[in-house]
Parts: sequence; C-alpha cells; structure tokens
Amino acid sequence: MSITVVGSVAYDSIETPAGRRERCLGGAATYFSLSASFFTEVRVIAVVGEDFGPEQEAVFTRRKIDTRGIEHAAGKSFFWEGSYLENLNEARTHNTELNVFASFEPKIPAAYSDSEFLFLANIDPVLQRRVREAMPQVKLVAGDTMNYWIKDHRPALVEVLKGLDALLINDTEARMLAGKDNLVQAARAVMALGPRFLVVKHGEYGATLFERDSSGGQEPKVFRAPALPLEEVIDPTGAGDSFAGGFFGYLAAQPEWTAAAFRRAIFYGSVMGSFACERFGTERLQQLSRAEIDARFELLRELTHLD
Amino acid sequence: MSITVVGSVAYDSIETPAGRRERCLGGAATYFSLSASFFTEVRVIAVVGEDFGPEQEAVFTRRKIDTRGIEHAAGKSFFWEGSYLENLNEARTHNTELNVFASFEPKIPAAYSDSEFLFLANIDPVLQRRVREAMPQVKLVAGDTMNYWIKDHRPALVEVLKGLDALLINDTEARMLAGKDNLVQAARAVMALGPRFLVVKHGEYGATLFERDSSGGQEPKVFRAPALPLEEVIDPTGAGDSFAGGFFGYLAAQPEWTAAAFRRAIFYGSVMGSFACERFGTERLQQLSRAEIDARFELLRELTHLD
Repeated sequence: MSITVVGSVAYDSIETPAGRRERCLGGAATYFSLSASFFTEVRVIAVVGEDFGPEQEAVFTRRKIDTRGIEHAAGKSFFWEGSYLENLNEARTHNTELNVFASFEPKIPAAYSDSEFLFLANIDPVLQRRVREAMPQVKLVAGDTMNYWIKDHRPALVEVLKGLDALLINDTEARMLAGKDNLVQAARAVMALGPRFLVVKHGEYGATLFERDSSGGQEPKVFRAPALPLEEVIDPTGAGDSFAGGFFGYLAAQPEWTAAAFRRAIFYGSVMGSFACERFGTERLQQLSRAEIDARFELLRELTHLD
Repeated sequence: MSITVVGSVAYDSIETPAGRRERCLGGAATYFSLSASFFTEVRVIAVVGEDFGPEQEAVFTRRKIDTRGIEHAAGKSFFWEGSYLENLNEARTHNTELNVFASFEPKIPAAYSDSEFLFLANIDPVLQRRVREAMPQVKLVAGDTMNYWIKDHRPALVEVLKGLDALLINDTEARMLAGKDNLVQAARAVMALGPRFLVVKHGEYGATLFERDSSGGQEPKVFRAPALPLEEVIDPTGAGDSFAGGFFGYLAAQPEWTAAAFRRAIFYGSVMGSFACERFGTERLQQLSRAEIDARFELLRELTHLD
C-alpha cells in the first residue's frame, strides 16, 4: 500500500539549546515521508528550487521514497529560520522565505494515481483540497494544519476537514479550531467538522486519539499514548510530522484498520516523534533502522503498561 | 497498615467555570485522607478552629478516618479563596487566612505511633521535618510541597527531602526545585536530594513515576500513567492531594512494594485525581465506592493499553 504526501520540502536554519544548524533539509513532507518510509511506500508531491540537488534527492531515494512528484522550479526552495532557546515546545520564527513555494501548484504524477493513502501536510488548505479532489481513489486521507490557517483561512480549512478521515494537530490547534478549552469537548467539535479520527499531540506528554462514536452515542472513544521522556531534546523540529509519518505509515501497512491497529499506530507515531528530536533536522531519521523502531515501541509499551 | 497524614484541614471558597461554592470543607489533609481511606486506615494530624463542628468531623469518621490528631483551637480554621476562571490547571488565589494554622504545632497522638506510613502534605517544611522526626518507626514516607517553599524556604525543604522515600509534585515545581527545564534531568536532580521515588504530576496529561537507579546506573527508571480525559472539570481543587491519597493509600495496602505495585499505585493516583475533579470540593470523594474506583482503574488501563 502506498501513501502520497503533499507538503513542503524546505531548508531550515535552527537554533536550540544544543546548538545551531544552517540550512538543514527539512519541511513537513520531508519529515513525514522519511518517517513513513520505514513502514510503507511513500510518494512525495512538493516543489523545490535550484538549491535542491542530487545530495538532497538522495536523502529520499535512499529510503526508496518516490520523488517524481517533486517539481524543480527556478529560484530557491522554501526557507525557514527559527529557534527554541526559551521553550523547546514552541518554535520562535525568525524568518520565513516562501520562495518557489509561493506559487506552488501541486501536480500529481500519473504514477501516483493508485495510491490508497493520502497525507495532506500543513500547507494552504486550498491546495490540500485540490490534491484531495484530484485523488478520488484514495481510501484513507489524513492531514495536518496550523494556527495560521485556523485563524485566517477557516472557510477553506473547513472544506478540507469535510474530506479527511483523520486530522493530526496539537492541543493549542485543537482548542483554537473548536473554540473550546476542554479537550474532550474540543475533540467532539472538531470531529463534527468531518474527520472521524482526531489525534491531538501533547508534545512531551504524548498524544490522544479520539474516534467519533458512529453508534449514535455522545462519547468519543479515547486512547492515549505516552511520549518517551527524553534526557535531551536536541531539536524538536519535525517531531509532529515524524509522528504523523509513523502513525499513517503504520496504518497504511495494515491489512485492516481495526481499533487495535489505530492504537498501535499512535504508539508508532510517538516512537517516530521521539527519534526525530534526538538529532538536528532529519539526521536521526536518516540513520534509523526498523529494528530500532520496534525496540523503542516495546520500550514505550513498558513505560506505560501495568503488566 | 495505617497512614498518618499531617497537613491542612480548611475551608475553601471556590469559583470555576461550573459555578461557585462558599466555604467547602477542604485542605490537603482532608483530600488526602478521604482518598487514601478507600485503600487503608488513615489518621490525621491537623488543626481546626471553632467553625469545625460535628458535621465536618463526620465527613472523616464516615470514612473511618482517625481524627484524634485533629486539634481544636480557639479561632477560625484556615480559609482559602480562589478561582480557576481563566485556567482550570492553575488556581488564582484571592484570599488566604491562616487563622489557627498560623500557630500550628503538630501533636502526634500516642495511638498514631504504630503507623507504618507517613504522608507530609504541603505545609511548612519545618513542621514536616518535626513530624518526620517524631515518627521514627515509619517504614515509608512520602510528601508534597509547593512553589512558595521551594523558592523561599529551600534550606528547610532540603532537610525534609533527605528523609523522604517519595516526593509528589507537579511539573513546574519539579523544574523549579531542580533548576532544570528537561524533566528527566530535573527528576534526577530532585532524587539526588533524597527521595528514591519522584512522582511528577502533569495535570490533564497524567503523571510520571521516576525511580532512582540504585544499581549505580545513570538512568532513572520511568513509568507513565495517563489521566482520564474528562468531559467537564467541575473543580480541580484537591486533585493533587487526592492523587497522592490514591497512590500512597494503595501502596500502604500492599504486602510488598514491588515495581508492579508502584505502577498500579500511580494508576490509582490518577483514578482518585479524576474523581476529585468531578464535583466541587470533596463532594465526589465523599460519595465514592471502591467498586467505582476499581471500574475506573480498568477504564484507565483500557485507555492506554495496547492489548
């Protein structure tokens, strides 16, 4: 089963208490696809500039990620500069240069048209919707968004939500989108907008999976996965996208989407998010093995299981 | 096995988004002892004023809590007024009247001297230490503290920590006490001050149990319990003390303090904290049954267990 992901492929300059890196390869689609590639086939739709060469391409192809949907445009790639000096949980943005991303028109290669899974990473909801509509064959669609789209592009975002099976956002975004402080109430309000599943990420505290009760009951079904307490967070950039890659990648590799599969998927999301934080940029994801992933899955199970 | 608890018995006027209550029976020792009473025998050391009558006494005695250590002094009981209108996770204090608590000198009834468990609720560390030293026979001592003592009474608090087996505090307190932002690093620093076990409470996200590695290794052992996502938090007052009562009460009822017992204890802590939030003051704890507690324990297990 293959996942098509649309989102940003970018360069990031990052400063954290652990140090500084200039122009790491980053972007939501990069983190997502590297993470998901440990579970299933991944195909990327993105746009890059002339500063994206064979070395960057190889980061994807070494993980057998299909890059035929990465468009090469004249100009420079999307660039983000940020720091986490006061708070490792929230980036402070110093500079954003959209560059070739400003006129991004996602083009879907014909070879991607049999993808059964679609992940709409955090981009303009108008583009998310366009990709969703161009891929009517997909069986499961998940997506991400951020405060900027929730606040200033709500009508377009609401249209996207109608076509999502699962939305992955953080606490602040869930509360902002729902206009409710209580997490359970916020989850119910968000799921009423479309997605049957909502994953709310709590950073270092883990994540909660909500499932709309389709039996007509009021209570959403709830499941919680812990995060691994890390001795040192080198760089949290991309942790949420890596979580999404683990979650959706694991699901895409399952023969059936049972409740048990969703539970394991959110644990795998937490596993991949924890790895992403251990080095700058995508360094850790590039060096990872499936055996390490499965060992950490067991560690996470032990961390929270009674028996 | 019986627990002696020293701490406040008080009146609270509380305002939350769900409403307002005047002069509820409250105080850390009240919440702790009601909660722990579902697991084991509890004995209280506290001071109250002339406004504490048979009706309040009955709240304790109905749960078979030993009140012989509650001293009745001339004047009014400790009074606290606070609200949670902007943030359910953090109280805003409007008024504190120490009243009879200002000259509290804990007196330990002779009948308490065979208690094997001691809980030092959040009071002046000078008093905590005095009670600890007056009860040398206890086998397991746990305690709580707060930002005020950490900031302005550190030397006295450090003396108390040396005599604690387990400390239960929240994230902010752990970070403040350790002077470290990273939770694992903070936990190691706090445990180096004395307690072999540290429970860090994360409010709506659950709690983490750290155990100092006594084999000489660097890594603390870690276990995480989720919190139950509540549809409506009526009043979070006393949730932390109720957590401590569930945690320590469960431990006190076990024949052995195995790693498995500690794991279950932190789940029971989370269970009792969740009940406390469901009504104003101690209302929910007063009406609770052991069967409800065990049912919620199973709910919490299901909430986070993969299999």
